[in-house]
Amino acid sequence: MTSQFVPRDSGYHKKVTNSFQEQAVMKTVNASIVSVVPGETILEFPFQPSLTQQNGFIHAGIVSTVLDSACGYAAFSLMSEGAAVLSIEFKVNLLSPAKGDKFKAIGRVKKAGRNITVTEGELFSYTDGKEKLVATMTATMMAVY
Amino acid sequence: MTSQFVPRDSGYHKKVTNSFQEQAVMKTVNASIVSVVPGETILEFPFQPSLTQQNGFIHAGIVSTVLDSACGYAAFSLMSEGAAVLSIEFKVNLLSPAKGDKFKAIGRVKKAGRNITVTEGELFSYTDGKEKLVATMTATMMAVY
Amino acid sequence: MTSQFVPRDSGYHKKVTNSFQEQAVMKTVNASIVSVVPGETILEFPFQPSLTQQNGFIHAGIVSTVLDSACGYAAFSLMSEGAAVLSIEFKVNLLSPAKGDKFKAIGRVKKAGRNITVTEGELFSYTDGKEKLVATMTATMMAVY
Amino acid sequence: MTSQFVPRDSGYHKKVTNSFQEQAVMKTVNASIVSVVPGETILEFPFQPSLTQQNGFIHAGIVSTVLDSACGYAAFSLMSEGAAVLSIEFKVNLLSPAKGDKFKAIGRVKKAGRNITVTEGELFSYTDGKEKLVATMTATMMAVY
Repeated sequence: MTSQFVPRDSGYHKKVTNSFQEQAVMKTVNASIVSVVPGETILEFPFQPSLTQQNGFIHAGIVSTVLDSACGYAAFSLMSEGAAVLSIEFKVNLLSPAKGDKFKAIGRVKKAGRNITVTEGELFSYTDGKEKLVATMTATMMAVY
Repeated sequence: MTSQFVPRDSGYHKKVTNSFQEQAVMKTVNASIVSVVPGETILEFPFQPSLTQQNGFIHAGIVSTVLDSACGYAAFSLMSEGAAVLSIEFKVNLLSPAKGDKFKAIGRVKKAGRNITVTEGELFSYTDGKEKLVATMTATMMAVY
Repeated sequence: MTSQFVPRDSGYHKKVTNSFQEQAVMKTVNASIVSVVPGETILEFPFQPSLTQQNGFIHAGIVSTVLDSACGYAAFSLMSEGAAVLSIEFKVNLLSPAKGDKFKAIGRVKKAGRNITVTEGELFSYTDGKEKLVATMTATMMAVY
Repeated sequence: MTSQFVPRDSGYHKKVTNSFQEQAVMKTVNASIVSVVPGETILEFPFQPSLTQQNGFIHAGIVSTVLDSACGYAAFSLMSEGAAVLSIEFKVNLLSPAKGDKFKAIGRVKKAGRNITVTEGELFSYTDGKEKLVATMTATMMAVY
């Protein structure tokens, strides 16, 4: 895959996958990395009854969990070596019920700065292979040196 | 406890606790209800290593999960009998790392309407009994008839 | 221009332009319509010293004013005849200082529903013809019948 | 008035009022300062037909303009001497139509940090002296050194 961004840290792929493996909550939601390119991270996770709200859909907060990680790692992939990434704030819009067999979260950098990086995320559901947009996120990430 | 709101549904307490028990994700995060009054719901949950991000803090998405439920039930407590509650969108600001022994999420109604209810949430951490504000949420909830 | 959306109201263009002309604040900021297609509205306005903040850039609230109108009219273009449009909430991220000769705001529908429509906006600056992304908006619009 | 915050810059009042006077848009909306204390700024402005949307209410973007200035100056009042203040992002919820004789915007610091300050704002309308909550804002401000 190609990317419009040039990473400042050539070890961007390794640092993202290492950090992802240290997020215990990613195991709890059973998420895995689909791809990491400079400025974009894609994660996926299957439906799990243990993550549902009262109607049997994935809870909006779990949707946010995977979107936040996807957006955070998209930002992290462009940060300098030695910087850590921190979510300052995010906003989520819930467009459709989070039901389906599996879910994919795409996080992308909209504007990368030395301190502040703005990212956008989309979460899709897959039901019998049919894709549907479930939620969008805008998240502000900070580099901590 | 007293409340500035008069519930339209006298069964507000029962419907909130019933719905809460149907949210499987609340068991996964080990959350429990502290109180439900008209227009306000308080939830709490203990620290769990399975919910952490790469630094060992509770993941921002899990913080959002409990805040969203607290805000949603605050809104739900004021809705008419037969209405269901749906999160349209929320915004979370992360003020301090989510570390501590336990966490408390307070959801409150800011403006209740027939269709749209705006809520605000605060999540506090407790470390050796010391309280700290970790995150705030503004969430828009919709009544579905 | 083509659009992925089919308008429910064939008079969508006229109702948007009529409503735009009734927004007195659009005259104050000297905004004009560039285009209206189903699900998308583009507005533009020139730099004006009367709209600036302390550094001589266009104030973030004025950026929001034009973005909100662009997003609102994008949503309105897809609404049924007789419905009015109302902004419920929006979030703005400010990516670059709003300086330049003129500015263009694009509002687009992300998800159109009968009651709730989610929109996204982008505001660009133009300095000697050079385009730069200044701000993004996510706005939730409601149809009032 | 008292405040829970201790300003790092004893000249906080003067720097806020000076900067406010340099915001030309504040003259356009006819806003004035009601009070500046450490961590809180209150502004007010009268109804003006030139600031209205299609129903004759003050446009949501103008509401945001005054709220953003109130929140920004609340943050600025706590910043070190020599720091400038920058809005990174804000979210506005619109609770009631912005109609009335005059409007008051209160901006308050929720969490002050060296780099990032989180603020909350409320805008009230006054009609024949009767107060009504029109809109809320959460805004993230950055200190630029």
